[in-house]
Amino acid sequence: MMKDLHRLTATEIVQAIQDGRSTCEAVTRACLTQIEEREPDVQAWQYLDPDLAIAQSRILDQSGRRGPLHGVPVGIKDLIDTFDMPTEYGTVIHARHQPRIDAACVALTRRAGGLIMGKTVTTEFANLTPSKTKHPQDPTRTPGGSSSGSGAAVGDHMVPLAIGTQTTASTIRPASFNGCVGYRPTWGDLPLAGVMEVAESLDTLGLIARSIDDIALYRDVLLCVKPEPLSSQVDAAPRVGFCSSIFWDRCDDSTKTLLHHCVTMLSKAGAQLVDVTLPQSFDRIPDAHRWISSFEFARNRAWEIDHHFEMISERLRRGRIHDGLTCSFEKYKSSREFAERSRLQLDDLFSGYDVLLTPAVAGEAPTGLEATGDPSFSLLWTTLHVPSITLPLFTGPNGLPVGVQLIARRGADRQMLNVARWVSRAVDWDGGFTTTRSSVR
Amino acid sequence: MMKDLHRLTATEIVQAIQDGRSTCEAVTRACLTQIEEREPDVQAWQYLDPDLAIAQSRILDQSGRRGPLHGVPVGIKDLIDTFDMPTEYGTVIHARHQPRIDAACVALTRRAGGLIMGKTVTTEFANLTPSKTKHPQDPTRTPGGSSSGSGAAVGDHMVPLAIGTQTTASTIRPASFNGCVGYRPTWGDLPLAGVMEVAESLDTLGLIARSIDDIALYRDVLLCVKPEPLSSQVDAAPRVGFCSSIFWDRCDDSTKTLLHHCVTMLSKAGAQLVDVTLPQSFDRIPDAHRWISSFEFARNRAWEIDHHFEMISERLRRGRIHDGLTCSFEKYKSSREFAERSRLQLDDLFSGYDVLLTPAVAGEAPTGLEATGDPSFSLLWTTLHVPSITLPLFTGPNGLPVGVQLIARRGADRQMLNVARWVSRAVDWDGGFTTTRSSVR
Repeated sequence: MMKDLHRLTATEIVQAIQDGRSTCEAVTRACLTQIEEREPDVQAWQYLDPDLAIAQSRILDQSGRRGPLHGVPVGIKDLIDTFDMPTEYGTVIHARHQPRIDAACVALTRRAGGLIMGKTVTTEFANLTPSKTKHPQDPTRTPGGSSSGSGAAVGDHMVPLAIGTQTTASTIRPASFNGCVGYRPTWGDLPLAGVMEVAESLDTLGLIARSIDDIALYRDVLLCVKPEPLSSQVDAAPRVGFCSSIFWDRCDDSTKTLLHHCVTMLSKAGAQLVDVTLPQSFDRIPDAHRWISSFEFARNRAWEIDHHFEMISERLRRGRIHDGLTCSFEKYKSSREFAERSRLQLDDLFSGYDVLLTPAVAGEAPTGLEATGDPSFSLLWTTLHVPSITLPLFTGPNGLPVGVQLIARRGADRQMLNVARWVSRAVDWDGGFTTTRSSVR
Repeated sequence: MMKDLHRLTATEIVQAIQDGRSTCEAVTRACLTQIEEREPDVQAWQYLDPDLAIAQSRILDQSGRRGPLHGVPVGIKDLIDTFDMPTEYGTVIHARHQPRIDAACVALTRRAGGLIMGKTVTTEFANLTPSKTKHPQDPTRTPGGSSSGSGAAVGDHMVPLAIGTQTTASTIRPASFNGCVGYRPTWGDLPLAGVMEVAESLDTLGLIARSIDDIALYRDVLLCVKPEPLSSQVDAAPRVGFCSSIFWDRCDDSTKTLLHHCVTMLSKAGAQLVDVTLPQSFDRIPDAHRWISSFEFARNRAWEIDHHFEMISERLRRGRIHDGLTCSFEKYKSSREFAERSRLQLDDLFSGYDVLLTPAVAGEAPTGLEATGDPSFSLLWTTLHVPSITLPLFTGPNGLPVGVQLIARRGADRQMLNVARWVSRAVDWDGGFTTTRSSVR
């Protein structure tokens, strides 16, 4: 039999099972062994029932090929409903809650033959207050949030794929810290039915994997389209706008160096690189994001606020909930309208570029478990509804992963994935994780 | 004590309780008596527990004034989660389902002192297949859908207020058929957390009442702002665009006459009336609505489709689900992009008008209980994300209500409500329902 099954990508697992070189049960057992060994340190899982996973794997092995994700174990952020596993949304208020049905993304995963391995840890209501998960490569560091468990589980080879969500930086940040590929789709493209509402004007799903091909595959599954492999090459070297964005000053110096190095390598590989300056008015986007996310969150969670206020963390009560309860509707509305105008402006800007290149995070995962890292580097793009992807192209001064983020025009997700592959080859990243420079353990 | 408490508007109830002229318990008992008398014919309620309602009313009477809706009984469409009452979404698949928490709109209603009277009947998954409700004034006719119970309950004086939802015409149509004021907000303004997802690009809440003031009051409650009464008069006679729209040919002749009569009366009252022609491209909106709503619905309800397909009505399976499962992502995406471009076009059009005046329905509620009436007259505006309101200004040839619809620019909901009051006065409708010409029983 094949070795190290838990290190395979989803695409490789599907192929191995289809070719008869492995089985879903063997893959699932390999992942469970890795989890058993690593979970005491990492604590990526909020719910995991090994017997249920193995039983499901046997059913899949006996059922014949169900779909394009047949036999692939997937981690589901515990903000997302599952009919056969509790869903607690990162809060004791909902301890042991058992939803009646699967969220749409979970049902579609199962329809495609995916195996729901378990529920991955989320921060409290997908906000800032961390839960128990630690960085797999250094337990004194944060794995990022709010999709903490999804990032750590994929990065630590417990599962090849996981779903997260993003309202600010909740997919890109943990993916970057854990050396994964993280993808945040164009707002509105992937279904949120059955996912706890954080802030509906900003929320999306997020996908975390160890290869770009896996992201493309899982995206197609969730779009209900027949998966098509990414084209083996883009037609022409891409036009890349280098966007240091308004948060450049918050980057670690080493990250600035890595980004400049990346620019140089892409230029050498033939890409057209141009410095991009965002419209001055975009400086107001962080403010708009603050009021939109707070107003909507406080309203969406009205029941929890009225019934269990004392069970909500002080950080959340004094932060987003306080902001939301004191924000006027007029301020919220003007923030939403400003964000929408900014989206149209950015559409225009993209006439000159295929993608923008920008930091994914300030640097390596910071030490300390009381916070989940600076979300600034995704906040802008989240608010602008554009797709983004972080690629684990580099490691920082401590040998920990540092992601590089690509941004594309709204609706250009597929093209972005193609360019991402071009970029990863240009910087000599082989597209897997097990053999990349980012893997320092 | 006051008489006919069940005929009061919400605004009148709040005032009567505040003045000590009545109590929440007295109002609730009056409504329950009306329900007891009328429910065998109308069947507006999916769940109603009189004891729970009375117990809640006593708590409210003892608690002191909680908020601007203090003591008002409200009906909640059974598509919307309630922590203390089952929520079945109009399908046997979810029979006796008990949600864990309140939807945001329900929690905010309680926070404001509203009393949740019970759950009103919805069609199956808020789609086309009718449930048990009949038209209060003629049991051989449909009450409209999908907010069938909400429309019938308010129209038949069982409660002064109800929440519905709208993805096509599900609030405006039942409100119009039942002689109510029905309001569909600007898309995105009112919270949908805890409401079953039909099609997220189109879904909104809808409010049904017997007065425009009640709509303004309830809207403010759900926006979490301090309610402000509508101004007693608009600054100037409004500029009204008369929009027969692309569906004029589907109107009953009597409705066309009523609409023209309305135009004449508004002109006499000083309004500037201008015929409006919509852009030719809007002819494609019904197609866009079809693909957007079907694609999203079929994806959102993936779990029900995969687990309980045989329990879904044939109409829904062969209609929206078939459409949704066969619609390509590209077709869906181009429909969504077309809809967004059309919204921007309509924004521009509104520079010349305060509101558009257009039919709300083809005419009176049609006979036959196998369908819920032609949704065409709302479909366009729903897709365009603009606010709309139907006013029960007229009765048709059989003495049944026929609504007139006003449309405003996205975000201009409050101005629309002010103009609606001006319009209702100009056509000599007193703003209540108990004494209007529409009330023929």
